[in-house]
Amino acid sequence: MVKVNDNYLKLPGSYLFSTIARKVNAYAAAHPDKRIIRLGIGDVTQPLAPAIISALHTAVDEMADAATFRGYAPDLGYEFLRSAIAENDYKARGCGIEADEIFVSDGAKCDSGNIQEIFSVDNKIAVCDPVYPVYVDTNVMAGRAGSYDPATETWSDVIYMPCTADTDFAPMLPKETPDLIYLCFPNNPTGSAVTKSRLQEWVDYANKVGAVIIYDAAYEAYISEEGIPHSIYECEGARTCAIELHSFSKNAGFTGVRLGYTVVPKELKVGDVSLHALWARRHGTKYNGAPYIVQRAGEAVYSKEGKEQLKKQVAYYMNNAAYILEGLKSAGYTVSGGVNAPYIWLKAPNGMTSWEFFDDLLENANVVGTPGSGFGPSGETYFRLTAFGSYENTVEAIERIKKL
Amino acid sequence: MVKVNDNYLKLPGSYLFSTIARKVNAYAAAHPDKRIIRLGIGDVTQPLAPAIISALHTAVDEMADAATFRGYAPDLGYEFLRSAIAENDYKARGCGIEADEIFVSDGAKCDSGNIQEIFSVDNKIAVCDPVYPVYVDTNVMAGRAGSYDPATETWSDVIYMPCTADTDFAPMLPKETPDLIYLCFPNNPTGSAVTKSRLQEWVDYANKVGAVIIYDAAYEAYISEEGIPHSIYECEGARTCAIELHSFSKNAGFTGVRLGYTVVPKELKVGDVSLHALWARRHGTKYNGAPYIVQRAGEAVYSKEGKEQLKKQVAYYMNNAAYILEGLKSAGYTVSGGVNAPYIWLKAPNGMTSWEFFDDLLENANVVGTPGSGFGPSGETYFRLTAFGSYENTVEAIERIKKL
Repeated sequence: MVKVNDNYLKLPGSYLFSTIARKVNAYAAAHPDKRIIRLGIGDVTQPLAPAIISALHTAVDEMADAATFRGYAPDLGYEFLRSAIAENDYKARGCGIEADEIFVSDGAKCDSGNIQEIFSVDNKIAVCDPVYPVYVDTNVMAGRAGSYDPATETWSDVIYMPCTADTDFAPMLPKETPDLIYLCFPNNPTGSAVTKSRLQEWVDYANKVGAVIIYDAAYEAYISEEGIPHSIYECEGARTCAIELHSFSKNAGFTGVRLGYTVVPKELKVGDVSLHALWARRHGTKYNGAPYIVQRAGEAVYSKEGKEQLKKQVAYYMNNAAYILEGLKSAGYTVSGGVNAPYIWLKAPNGMTSWEFFDDLLENANVVGTPGSGFGPSGETYFRLTAFGSYENTVEAIERIKKL
Repeated sequence: MVKVNDNYLKLPGSYLFSTIARKVNAYAAAHPDKRIIRLGIGDVTQPLAPAIISALHTAVDEMADAATFRGYAPDLGYEFLRSAIAENDYKARGCGIEADEIFVSDGAKCDSGNIQEIFSVDNKIAVCDPVYPVYVDTNVMAGRAGSYDPATETWSDVIYMPCTADTDFAPMLPKETPDLIYLCFPNNPTGSAVTKSRLQEWVDYANKVGAVIIYDAAYEAYISEEGIPHSIYECEGARTCAIELHSFSKNAGFTGVRLGYTVVPKELKVGDVSLHALWARRHGTKYNGAPYIVQRAGEAVYSKEGKEQLKKQVAYYMNNAAYILEGLKSAGYTVSGGVNAPYIWLKAPNGMTSWEFFDDLLENANVVGTPGSGFGPSGETYFRLTAFGSYENTVEAIERIKKL
């Protein structure tokens, strides 16, 4: 008699963004006259840059001709893309990451969910609190999180690292020693960043205790200040303790195009076992590569035209971020983030909970954001807005919020 | 101190097709003058059909305009694609599968590897022998296969169902009762098919013993004979015991485009637990949808023009299959498959093992096939050729083999 994976049954409710979508859809259905502005899920709104569109069309045409048609992609991704990544995202920043340490995928969400598979179920994970739910939920599914306590909204076997106003929304080294440490900087959801010297402390700590850091760098393109690392491999010793995840969703607007990559350095070993070899095996066995046309689109991200166009696109969103930040500040809100990240983290006003403020904003301003409590208990009373709307919508949303 | 997933370390050698690629690359490097014909990995060679190319270009243009740009896709896939699938692949065949029972993905390989996650590690799997390696390897990685015996090349906790000449290359109901049964018809690698009445026996059996069938229908477009089911849902009772996997790789040449789907009927339950709900949770948590442009390409597969063009493409490959079948038969080989499937299964001549014949063919005919033993112990002394080459290459490969 077949049995299900009981770990799935431990998961409370549904995935955060599905819940939001349901609530918003219900409100929209009941109020068809209201124009809802979505600054919630972190989806981009600007069209793909011309250099990327052009690369896509060219690649589509190649697929129409037997002489240039491409079937299965190489296991790790096409050399042209992996080389462009190694050159631009690493060597240009002084990080010695080679093309064959890069695994091309269909996005950082998948990779951040799948990467735990190569580790033992007995490992203990540490996560920031608040945190991107995928890190925790995928570990729950694997049976690594213990049991859920609805009162505290925490898992018995997960080490939480509170990121609050007291810590500048950055985690402190945990008291209990973890085996796997999930870090995301610039941070989702708080929009905070850490300096290179702070990140170096984490690398040194992981090397000392024999932990592996899963470093999510999905938002690095939004870093505007000096001294903030774009990659964990800027830190000494990271090659022996860190895996880095990258997305093309936010720097190039690929949320609907789907492309990402993961770096597993060849020196990264557990005893004699190469994590690069394990991830290669997982990749080769359970995955069949990102579409050829999408990998060509990824290559265009690193072209001269692509870089210039995307710099403008990021600047467009960061202009929104600045508008949100200033607008909310002037309206008396307590806000952070939005300087090195496209996320603005604000305190719900008047002692409201995160979901109370969500409902208030949806019903009275027709603006959708993300309740901070959805990211973890320390997110309670906080709220996330994203800079990924159009400028016009962003301005209108802030004006509506100011009038509340 | 971090620990790895020890189950990965149990896997012997590397993934079959990676091994083949390494051998072929080594031979090609040593003999740059030889023209190698690849009838091994099952990759297609014909360009995408014009209707699909046109849909891709249109979708790319939509991504260039903020008014039509698409970000994150809906969790299950776009409605336009799921409806087209439900209508064409199911309702037109009398199968009551609804659009919301269809989960769009980036391919059947991923789905066939991931589907085991929603089941308990304690479940016992049954697989055909020979078998597509992904079914077994992903269960090994999950810790469901027990220990490997190099002498018999089998796993202690896996139930093997030999598919040999004695059984017409179809599996018999196993003596030991499994919890999960992997079936693939038309079969990879043997190219065999089963009648609807034979498949009905499996459905009845699964419902009786409380097992779930994972039914891989990746090759259904190649069925040419009457009475061979295109979907397991043509059988009565399949909605309460079967999950079906589909690929666009072989019917539409999407090996490098990446699209597939999985059907989990809403009636399919284990006790009170809906497998549809579990898979939806997995999909929503670890996956972010197939690219919009690729889903539009999938929609074009079901357009009037797309259907006509793809019918010709399938016929082109099946013409190759007939050529291989007849050619090898006339040369005295023992062959099967190739009638309802793009795979031809042949007995290695002169008492050779599968790998001996692989080397012989690579070195003396410069033709690449797949050793049957790579698919399981009952595949030993057998060999798989695919019909996915160009007609010219197929003809030349057969002429070369005839001269051996």
